[in-house]
Amino acid sequence: MIDTFAGIIMGSESDRGTMQGAADILREFHIPFEWRVISAHRSPELLQEFVHDAEKRGISFFIAGAGGSAHLAGVIASFTTLPVLGVPIHNTKLLGLDSLLSIVNMPAGIPVATFSVGPAGATNAALFGVALLAAKYPEVNSILRNYRNQKKERLTADSIKNAVVYDGKEV
Amino acid sequence: MIDTFAGIIMGSESDRGTMQGAADILREFHIPFEWRVISAHRSPELLQEFVHDAEKRGISFFIAGAGGSAHLAGVIASFTTLPVLGVPIHNTKLLGLDSLLSIVNMPAGIPVATFSVGPAGATNAALFGVALLAAKYPEVNSILRNYRNQKKERLTADSIKNAVVYDGKEV
Amino acid sequence: MIDTFAGIIMGSESDRGTMQGAADILREFHIPFEWRVISAHRSPELLQEFVHDAEKRGISFFIAGAGGSAHLAGVIASFTTLPVLGVPIHNTKLLGLDSLLSIVNMPAGIPVATFSVGPAGATNAALFGVALLAAKYPEVNSILRNYRNQKKERLTADSIKNAVVYDGKEV
Amino acid sequence: MIDTFAGIIMGSESDRGTMQGAADILREFHIPFEWRVISAHRSPELLQEFVHDAEKRGISFFIAGAGGSAHLAGVIASFTTLPVLGVPIHNTKLLGLDSLLSIVNMPAGIPVATFSVGPAGATNAALFGVALLAAKYPEVNSILRNYRNQKKERLTADSIKNAVVYDGKEV
Amino acid sequence: MIDTFAGIIMGSESDRGTMQGAADILREFHIPFEWRVISAHRSPELLQEFVHDAEKRGISFFIAGAGGSAHLAGVIASFTTLPVLGVPIHNTKLLGLDSLLSIVNMPAGIPVATFSVGPAGATNAALFGVALLAAKYPEVNSILRNYRNQKKERLTADSIKNAVVYDGKEV
Amino acid sequence: MIDTFAGIIMGSESDRGTMQGAADILREFHIPFEWRVISAHRSPELLQEFVHDAEKRGISFFIAGAGGSAHLAGVIASFTTLPVLGVPIHNTKLLGLDSLLSIVNMPAGIPVATFSVGPAGATNAALFGVALLAAKYPEVNSILRNYRNQKKERLTADSIKNAVVYDGKEV
Amino acid sequence: MIDTFAGIIMGSESDRGTMQGAADILREFHIPFEWRVISAHRSPELLQEFVHDAEKRGISFFIAGAGGSAHLAGVIASFTTLPVLGVPIHNTKLLGLDSLLSIVNMPAGIPVATFSVGPAGATNAALFGVALLAAKYPEVNSILRNYRNQKKERLTADSIKNAVVYDGKEV
Amino acid sequence: MIDTFAGIIMGSESDRGTMQGAADILREFHIPFEWRVISAHRSPELLQEFVHDAEKRGISFFIAGAGGSAHLAGVIASFTTLPVLGVPIHNTKLLGLDSLLSIVNMPAGIPVATFSVGPAGATNAALFGVALLAAKYPEVNSILRNYRNQKKERLTADSIKNAVVYDGKEV
Repeated sequence: MIDTFAGIIMGSESDRGTMQGAADILREFHIPFEWRVISAHRSPELLQEFVHDAEKRGISFFIAGAGGSAHLAGVIASFTTLPVLGVPIHNTKLLGLDSLLSIVNMPAGIPVATFSVGPAGATNAALFGVALLAAKYPEVNSILRNYRNQKKERLTADSIKNAVVYDGKEV
Repeated sequence: MIDTFAGIIMGSESDRGTMQGAADILREFHIPFEWRVISAHRSPELLQEFVHDAEKRGISFFIAGAGGSAHLAGVIASFTTLPVLGVPIHNTKLLGLDSLLSIVNMPAGIPVATFSVGPAGATNAALFGVALLAAKYPEVNSILRNYRNQKKERLTADSIKNAVVYDGKEV
Repeated sequence: MIDTFAGIIMGSESDRGTMQGAADILREFHIPFEWRVISAHRSPELLQEFVHDAEKRGISFFIAGAGGSAHLAGVIASFTTLPVLGVPIHNTKLLGLDSLLSIVNMPAGIPVATFSVGPAGATNAALFGVALLAAKYPEVNSILRNYRNQKKERLTADSIKNAVVYDGKEV
Repeated sequence: MIDTFAGIIMGSESDRGTMQGAADILREFHIPFEWRVISAHRSPELLQEFVHDAEKRGISFFIAGAGGSAHLAGVIASFTTLPVLGVPIHNTKLLGLDSLLSIVNMPAGIPVATFSVGPAGATNAALFGVALLAAKYPEVNSILRNYRNQKKERLTADSIKNAVVYDGKEV
Repeated sequence: MIDTFAGIIMGSESDRGTMQGAADILREFHIPFEWRVISAHRSPELLQEFVHDAEKRGISFFIAGAGGSAHLAGVIASFTTLPVLGVPIHNTKLLGLDSLLSIVNMPAGIPVATFSVGPAGATNAALFGVALLAAKYPEVNSILRNYRNQKKERLTADSIKNAVVYDGKEV
Repeated sequence: MIDTFAGIIMGSESDRGTMQGAADILREFHIPFEWRVISAHRSPELLQEFVHDAEKRGISFFIAGAGGSAHLAGVIASFTTLPVLGVPIHNTKLLGLDSLLSIVNMPAGIPVATFSVGPAGATNAALFGVALLAAKYPEVNSILRNYRNQKKERLTADSIKNAVVYDGKEV
Repeated sequence: MIDTFAGIIMGSESDRGTMQGAADILREFHIPFEWRVISAHRSPELLQEFVHDAEKRGISFFIAGAGGSAHLAGVIASFTTLPVLGVPIHNTKLLGLDSLLSIVNMPAGIPVATFSVGPAGATNAALFGVALLAAKYPEVNSILRNYRNQKKERLTADSIKNAVVYDGKEV
Repeated sequence: MIDTFAGIIMGSESDRGTMQGAADILREFHIPFEWRVISAHRSPELLQEFVHDAEKRGISFFIAGAGGSAHLAGVIASFTTLPVLGVPIHNTKLLGLDSLLSIVNMPAGIPVATFSVGPAGATNAALFGVALLAAKYPEVNSILRNYRNQKKERLTADSIKNAVVYDGKEV
């Protein structure tokens, strides 16, 4: 059994739609998680408390989704040596580029693993978290390999089914 | 009693929606203000006149919101040594980045304090103005601290109430 | 007498050259200050401690210079309602734009006043800090106005002295 | 005879190298000019005075070179209906893009004709100014056409002289 | 009477909405013009022909609006020494920045005066064209000054009428 | 007769709308083609297989459309020396600039010919493919020249028909 | 004992300087590794072979450093479900932004954990890899916590030692 | 024998260093070529003449290298249906992004195949030209495949020779 859990933290209630994909993936792989809204700027003590408490209770990794200045992932990483996976969210006019750069450009010594802006990033952060647990939990590893292979088989079948061939004659 | 006032200036009537948040914050903190549409380019003499007159009448700071070339905050700052708070507005295709850079990149000697593009920037400029007055008016200081703490408490309560916990079992 | 002080914080020793201009301006205006290297990510507890302690000892404002992810100013602002002045520093390949956006795009509720990237930003943040104190200390106000007027007179004199006039005749 | 003149204004003494090309072109075409350093932010009254005075003395157009926030051309245009030609200068880390956008994104009603960042922009602004005068002064028009044709002939000759032809045989 | 005309050229029929503002301004100032769709890439010979023919018939300046690669203004400028005013149009995903840079970054020797992306740029290019004619046609000059002053008076009246004043008491 | 064919590959079913224009052009020129959805990341073996098989069956060129990281064109080019034409697709918030740069910045030695983001790029990639075949198939060459000339004639006719002329009198 | 290893792959010999920091960190933590130059585009079969072989030999994660189109990390991730850590390298004029976006914008389903451009990214990718192993190897976990704490203590000591205090009196 | 040739055109003598790589590749494959400096803006008639003349003499494709506004490739493409390969050159402050976008964003109907900014782009454009000729000249095809395979073998050998393996023991 999986005797650990993941923490999903997002900076604002408005990020929930974007981060839903991360929760969906974790459920699909039966990874326990806690999902919280905690702002690095508006409730910094709560964030620090949650990180320290989760560490004590055996959390394995954090997924942090935030937009704009997007300091959330970096602040979490300042309190823990556990893996922190950052998901930039597009909530200013700047295409999410502000959030992406703020999350990815951490100083040497305090790494944050960064994923793409928005829902695809949330999904991929969770899948990456699954891959982290696969190193320790053989059943997770085997589900992950099946998941990937099934997707590949479906895509291959669809690719053949939806192929369009034109022989240069009919218009 | 607060024996001073703030000046909100915006370059165009179309900026009113964006700057409303600044006025709302000042009202919430009972800070008197005057809010005017004055274009740095289309009515430069009026701008200069307003700044000099407001200085004589005891204004404490200016909040300037403008888009595109966004020279407004810088031109105000060229006429006064009072704090000028600049709010970039997104009114071209360029994501507000043009306005942000035009406001923030002032030459050494003539500072403009810059906030983020759009409504969040307007709100924060006004909150920053409140913080300026808090240094001189103890009652403003105490309202400001309460305001921040109440927000924090509400966020903390919401964070707990809306927590999602998944134990890895049910789908 | 000035019975307060400013706090200059920078994220790394390598930012000292950029922030020197802020210290120079404060000295020129006889504003007491403390200048520290404290990383938001590598020594978060020290940062929190310094901010709370400085608040108790009567600090008036913070100037925070940081590059890359540049979370420093935002993290300071999360701990205090005092004015926080942010200076982006150019220490990645991304022109300082990453630091600028990370500092300026704070969420509504937690303002950071942002200045331009690099030494001009440091100088202007300090001059803006002087303007903040000018509201409370009349002697600072009068020095500030003199400072600005003297610069203006010198520039005007130089402008006349260095004028180039060509009458269309000689080559 | 040319009974008018051009005004070259730049925001800082450090812009002189960039703007030299504008002066060189005007000299080459025997167009009288005055070339001044006047900052829109640090000496706004001097700028206003120079523009109004030059208008009375019969100036035909302004060339304004500035970097960073680069409000100079826009502020000149706010005081006059004469053509204002803006030259962005690269003096921050932002590739001159900040100056370019600040000069070109003028609000409807107050046009500034913008040229490229740096020396090529200064040269082209001056050549464009020559083209403006060519409408009124036939001798300028004829020198301008000769100038362009001579350049073209030289380039054509050079193109033939420096052609490299490889027949696929020798290495 | 005005014995010249302006040429408005745009690269595609889809640019008409953007360029309408240029035609409107010219009509408002009674400046004769011809307005054509001619693509620099799809009908290069027609473009060259139109430019040479218009030059012979006494055209004073060209306004060229184009999007994407936006070579139109530059190609016109390669055929004439008359003033060419370029208007970037936003017709790719790239915010019009591609068109702006393609128009403004002309090589030294072949100037194009560039205006902002979209309708404001079209309006300002036309107003700039009016300013060019004002040098030669005193009646145009006097209409232009009136136009600007009337706008300024209306803005000043509106600024006073729409002023919002809050005294810190009522909510 | 055309005894070869083109391969259109796109990374995802959602790219079909964008790539339709490429298929339309090939049909218009009677160029046989196969059009497949094959992801470089999700079904890499299928991609490799398709490329090698198509090479054996006499394919002449590949058109690859992809968004986001957009590795598709580059991966195809790593398996073949045939011409690979890349079409960036806009499917993240980043304006398609991410896809464009990922496709165009191939290392020296493995070229990918890149076209613009979106439908115009797909159309042009196909037209470019037609031009490649025109070198070998005289009938394709003659259809291509007719196609271009007919477009030019229609544009010229439209340009004349839709010309707007204003004589400066009526409003 | 650590019975696994890390794979460092870079696209070109010229990336060695940037990736050295990753190797240094792994050595510092006594993590075995293999470090290879394998181009995704110029030797795709070798890459595929190395990934599959390393998987069989018990590799735990890949660190992939690449510049320009930077497809390396994504192509590795297409062949394995193991964690892939991507390091963008700055080897075109585009500030490394091209590499960053090409690495981070992976499609949903195939995650790549991305770090910042250049040496700091290489260092942090390796430290993140150490954190991955810390979940399974308690001795790595304890070394990692010591490493972080020692850095923090040294920074705190330096911060106090290098503090600059100015009391507003001496110049 | 190869009874055709390639045309390399660049906008300015200063582009020669960048384009040298294209000439080197063509020589290496024994492809005859003519290499000329012809500016689209400064000598437009010469450009048109060269393109038409080369077409008559049996040219197969054009490689066009240009910086800044970089209209060269597009203007060539407006005169011919032959393949035009565009190489952006970095000669302004804007990282070559201006040239890249100006070359790649051609309107639907007039394709230009674009390669990366600078020398790698020049090399790849020439290699792509070689691939075009390989369709018609079997000997070129066979040299091209050898060229690629030899590079691959050398890289594979180097990859093995330069592998660094660390077993976690020695420091």
